[in-house]
Amino acid sequence: MGMKKNKVTVEIFGETYPLKGDSEPERMVQVAALLDERMRQTAFSNPRMPTLMVAILAALNIADEYLRLQHDYQQLLKMLDDK
Amino acid sequence: MGMKKNKVTVEIFGETYPLKGDSEPERMVQVAALLDERMRQTAFSNPRMPTLMVAILAALNIADEYLRLQHDYQQLLKMLDDK
Repeated sequence: MGMKKNKVTVEIFGETYPLKGDSEPERMVQVAALLDERMRQTAFSNPRMPTLMVAILAALNIADEYLRLQHDYQQLLKMLDDK
Repeated sequence: MGMKKNKVTVEIFGETYPLKGDSEPERMVQVAALLDERMRQTAFSNPRMPTLMVAILAALNIADEYLRLQHDYQQLLKMLDDK
């Protein structure tokens, strides 16, 4: 608890970002690794794409999977509820 | 089925992006709206932050929730399996 923030420096798509957050440092590193991987995949499929657009497309990709999983999760909860 | 891609133009953080994908256009608009909302929240909390960093932080935020939900989903499946 408390207001103390965790700090960690991560590398995403060749740039280093100092992050502050309530999550565990290991967690922030894991999340950054996911974004880094998606940005690299996006850039690989779209050479010469500007970095901002790479970040936007990678973010859309993650957001799409997130909403999809949210739907599946709701379905599963509903199924359990119906039992 | 087939290779025909759906196309839709979305607005994210004041920029328009032409998107192509296998998802329904409504779906792409919904995903873009989530990212737009997160980028606006991030920029609101961090005035004068460069757009790329706004996109990166918003993407990390979504990725964090995605991994969290993935964990919860696995737990729920495991629970069902143990029954």
